[in-house]
Amino acid sequence: MTVNPEQEQEIEELRAEANVTRRVTSPGLEQILYEVLPVLDHGFVRVLDYMGDDGAVVQAARVSYGKGTRKVMEDQGLINYLMRHRHSTPFEMCEIKYHVKLPIFVARQWIRHRTANVNEYSARYSILDREFYVPEPEHLAAQATSNRQGRGDVLTGDDNARVLNLLREDAERNYAHYQEMLNLDDNGDVLDDSRTGLARELARMNLSLNYYSQWYWKIDLHNLLHFLSLRADAHAQFEIREYADVMMDTVKKWVPQTFSAFEDYRMGGAHLSAKGLEIVKRMLDGEDVTQPDSGLSKREWSELMAQLGRES
Amino acid sequence: MTVNPEQEQEIEELRAEANVTRRVTSPGLEQILYEVLPVLDHGFVRVLDYMGDDGAVVQAARVSYGKGTRKVMEDQGLINYLMRHRHSTPFEMCEIKYHVKLPIFVARQWIRHRTANVNEYSARYSILDREFYVPEPEHLAAQATSNRQGRGDVLTGDDNARVLNLLREDAERNYAHYQEMLNLDDNGDVLDDSRTGLARELARMNLSLNYYSQWYWKIDLHNLLHFLSLRADAHAQFEIREYADVMMDTVKKWVPQTFSAFEDYRMGGAHLSAKGLEIVKRMLDGEDVTQPDSGLSKREWSELMAQLGRES
Amino acid sequence: MTVNPEQEQEIEELRAEANVTRRVTSPGLEQILYEVLPVLDHGFVRVLDYMGDDGAVVQAARVSYGKGTRKVMEDQGLINYLMRHRHSTPFEMCEIKYHVKLPIFVARQWIRHRTANVNEYSARYSILDREFYVPEPEHLAAQATSNRQGRGDVLTGDDNARVLNLLREDAERNYAHYQEMLNLDDNGDVLDDSRTGLARELARMNLSLNYYSQWYWKIDLHNLLHFLSLRADAHAQFEIREYADVMMDTVKKWVPQTFSAFEDYRMGGAHLSAKGLEIVKRMLDGEDVTQPDSGLSKREWSELMAQLGRES
Amino acid sequence: MTVNPEQEQEIEELRAEANVTRRVTSPGLEQILYEVLPVLDHGFVRVLDYMGDDGAVVQAARVSYGKGTRKVMEDQGLINYLMRHRHSTPFEMCEIKYHVKLPIFVARQWIRHRTANVNEYSARYSILDREFYVPEPEHLAAQATSNRQGRGDVLTGDDNARVLNLLREDAERNYAHYQEMLNLDDNGDVLDDSRTGLARELARMNLSLNYYSQWYWKIDLHNLLHFLSLRADAHAQFEIREYADVMMDTVKKWVPQTFSAFEDYRMGGAHLSAKGLEIVKRMLDGEDVTQPDSGLSKREWSELMAQLGRES
Repeated sequence: MTVNPEQEQEIEELRAEANVTRRVTSPGLEQILYEVLPVLDHGFVRVLDYMGDDGAVVQAARVSYGKGTRKVMEDQGLINYLMRHRHSTPFEMCEIKYHVKLPIFVARQWIRHRTANVNEYSARYSILDREFYVPEPEHLAAQATSNRQGRGDVLTGDDNARVLNLLREDAERNYAHYQEMLNLDDNGDVLDDSRTGLARELARMNLSLNYYSQWYWKIDLHNLLHFLSLRADAHAQFEIREYADVMMDTVKKWVPQTFSAFEDYRMGGAHLSAKGLEIVKRMLDGEDVTQPDSGLSKREWSELMAQLGRES
Repeated sequence: MTVNPEQEQEIEELRAEANVTRRVTSPGLEQILYEVLPVLDHGFVRVLDYMGDDGAVVQAARVSYGKGTRKVMEDQGLINYLMRHRHSTPFEMCEIKYHVKLPIFVARQWIRHRTANVNEYSARYSILDREFYVPEPEHLAAQATSNRQGRGDVLTGDDNARVLNLLREDAERNYAHYQEMLNLDDNGDVLDDSRTGLARELARMNLSLNYYSQWYWKIDLHNLLHFLSLRADAHAQFEIREYADVMMDTVKKWVPQTFSAFEDYRMGGAHLSAKGLEIVKRMLDGEDVTQPDSGLSKREWSELMAQLGRES
Repeated sequence: MTVNPEQEQEIEELRAEANVTRRVTSPGLEQILYEVLPVLDHGFVRVLDYMGDDGAVVQAARVSYGKGTRKVMEDQGLINYLMRHRHSTPFEMCEIKYHVKLPIFVARQWIRHRTANVNEYSARYSILDREFYVPEPEHLAAQATSNRQGRGDVLTGDDNARVLNLLREDAERNYAHYQEMLNLDDNGDVLDDSRTGLARELARMNLSLNYYSQWYWKIDLHNLLHFLSLRADAHAQFEIREYADVMMDTVKKWVPQTFSAFEDYRMGGAHLSAKGLEIVKRMLDGEDVTQPDSGLSKREWSELMAQLGRES
Repeated sequence: MTVNPEQEQEIEELRAEANVTRRVTSPGLEQILYEVLPVLDHGFVRVLDYMGDDGAVVQAARVSYGKGTRKVMEDQGLINYLMRHRHSTPFEMCEIKYHVKLPIFVARQWIRHRTANVNEYSARYSILDREFYVPEPEHLAAQATSNRQGRGDVLTGDDNARVLNLLREDAERNYAHYQEMLNLDDNGDVLDDSRTGLARELARMNLSLNYYSQWYWKIDLHNLLHFLSLRADAHAQFEIREYADVMMDTVKKWVPQTFSAFEDYRMGGAHLSAKGLEIVKRMLDGEDVTQPDSGLSKREWSELMAQLGRES
């Protein structure tokens, strides 16, 4: 269950709000404010609040580059220019706050990004819900052999079923023992009056890394785009990419012009090294460059050819 | 002149906006949104945007400390508790954006606070206005003799007049030469067709540190309070304190409960060292402690007695 | 096992190094460089590198406050002054790098401190060791009843034994299933040729939060002291406090003058609110103040009396 | 004068130090430690301290990616891989501390980089020296006409001479009046016993932006490379580029393998947008793409052609 009925009720009330403000608003983002955007089996992303829109980026760029800029470039052109030339400060003028429910192993990757504000649900004070992540069978990938980091083919048949069973059984058992140590039942009532419950801050250590946690996460648009460029990338782990993909949609609704520039210059682009650029120039001049005479290692050569959509 | 008629017109239009939003609003801050709050002779502070209110602090604290908290403490009590125990992350859930016009020597102190987002008017691209800060005669203080940092008595008579004249004349002359180097007049037109103007990024170096600059400055509430605790303090230079004082008022309008806790626990409080606390305990037990038997240096002793409002 | 024989050998080689440098050195810290300082049942702290010493703090303060300072204050007095007046930037001139082995639930508290550089052992690429934390029986505390966060009395008899058994058995079982999912044995060899192993990034989610991880953690002295003031505090969870205590010793060896000031002004001191300070003044003037006429809530009153070492 | 005889003496003493340490050392950087590396007419860069070397980057990467990495890649190959794939945290394990003397207008650009530790000479406490920057005649560039930011041709004849005179005369006069307001002469003695000197924190505002300041600046290697990639770039103002160029040399001496990767992948490379990459692919397939059918604006097209070294 992603949210319980009580939470659903609360969200509906928040969505019924219609406050008057002198601030700029983003009509696209207002549409989905507070909504539960499901991710994985029990997780979600919700936009709780925001500050600024595409216009705020443009306005900040113009305070830096002066009044004359207005004549030369239209808004989209200016945003493209900023993105292309990595002028990051105007994008820092927008801010967004998310409520995220996510497995702990995903939270541990996510928190590496330090330029955000975080308030996480504390298992020192509160009891975690009985909710854990189990992948869909089609996402139970084998260890990649070519690449120490990535995933290979999907496990089949018995291999697949065995993993799912182990994950489920261990998570269930660990939770049952968590409750036994706390000496509490599902309703938070004492299980056995003759026993004393362990401190919450200790009992939690028995839970596995697929248990769900929750946090509020607030970040400026520049750092959010950096986060998304890493976490919506094909090298990121599938589970965190699922969150990044949902957040990409929220950015598109919030600041469509910035999102368009981001897609063109960051997500879709390619970075060439000095040597790589030299090779492209030679190829454009008609030379038939091969790996041995490229000056690149085999790995670099195959990465470059992949970027250029050519066989290596 | 703090703002020109064109800017005044723009501000009036912004203030006439009435957008509908699902976000929380701060009625107190909405009242003064976009308004020019004058500081010093030509400077100002304007609130351009904000995210969150006292309720957002409480909400973040409750996600951390769990549902049960609600019963135990009312909002003001919870905010007081967070402030007293230096739980900073819930205050990071609110964000504010200012537009500030300030002398360059004030900007140089201000920018030391690194946890903010900044977009400054660039004198590489644009021409700075002929606006510089000259203190009021009653703020022309002498160098303090007891304290290498602070200010002493106000200069009188000729001493006062001489300083004001020098500041004004030098600033005016430097600006005239700035324009001469740029080969531009007050309207931005070429002064002399037979000459070539110097690059803006070079000419600006002839301006003195009392010239005004402008920036957008965006920061979260926790870091803003830290900034204000240092810059609204009696040890801060008068000129930056003038800005901090105006900003204190905006915080009071924005998050009145947080501001009340901040005044009680930060601005008005005192930090005692281990030795200082020991002395207070001995005094409370009726002992007549003196500096020689306090274990404190003379400087520390007099600082402690000042904190306790006693003669040293 | 805290470190294996291969690691021990490597550490001995590092400790045998004697390089010549023009940089300042800290003789106290050199003594223990690279050494394994044990924490909890399998964890450790090791100092891997450092930059600067007490002299570097003083030198930075003097570049800020000018030459004249030298005459007025000796080094310890200047460091005390900086600490007392929260001048943080001179302490940022020193840097230290630790290698830490710690349970994941401790790592999750630790990483909240964002102003540090971190490289953590990655369970996407590598296989975690079969090492998990189990508290000593005397640290198996019950949930506090007065305070939702803290620990109460130690569990006794069967309650104690049951918890230890559950923690050990679940951790062992989860690890066995981790290996079964990976299809690898203790030597990293394939368990069963007819099966395909799950990707490491997925299998790790079956491990519980008491499993050990490792990281390199690098931080400047100012932010380290802030970290220690929170994590060596009585409100911090026992397990992270064990790490903080060991690190306190390393700071004492590294920068003894700074550490002395830190103990006096931060660890041992007390912060009084405006209202609290007012009450102390009234008490020093001989008034017999009681909670009802103090203007403080009951909770604040009892916290103040505790700070002053008086009955509430 | 870049440094005075007293400072020269102090530097020689520091360079004569030969301390023994267990830490890793960088032989290349030790050679120039503490040395004055001159920049502009009176400025300098000095390396005061450092932590780590290329080996520390590799070591941190290996803690993240596990033991197996060692077999697969040699150190230079691993560093190249990290740089190419923007794995930034291993580079954060190295730290360096500079002492920099620089004009105030350069300091104002520099301080925008927030991820560093700074201690600046304070003109609230101390008196600034009579040292200001005046460009060499061959660097007195006109305002660019094509580009609002850059510099055009060098001013010639009278135009050049007039600017140099104005800059020198105004800086000299402003300093004379600074001293008159302080009522102090070059030796720091009182000028006129019948007058009272203005507070230093006020008098300084009369100095122009080409006056020199000094600071200690400490930063990790990852953020230093980011700083250098922006400030050693052709779009940066000439004066800050002069500092960046000198610092590039210090990085080359410190971490030669990292520097080599940085030159190849960052300084010399090119970033292509999604559209730009598509065009390169079409060109490599033999198509004769022109701006109108490229889907790029004229500005983007000419930027792309410039990157590829082709006429637009």
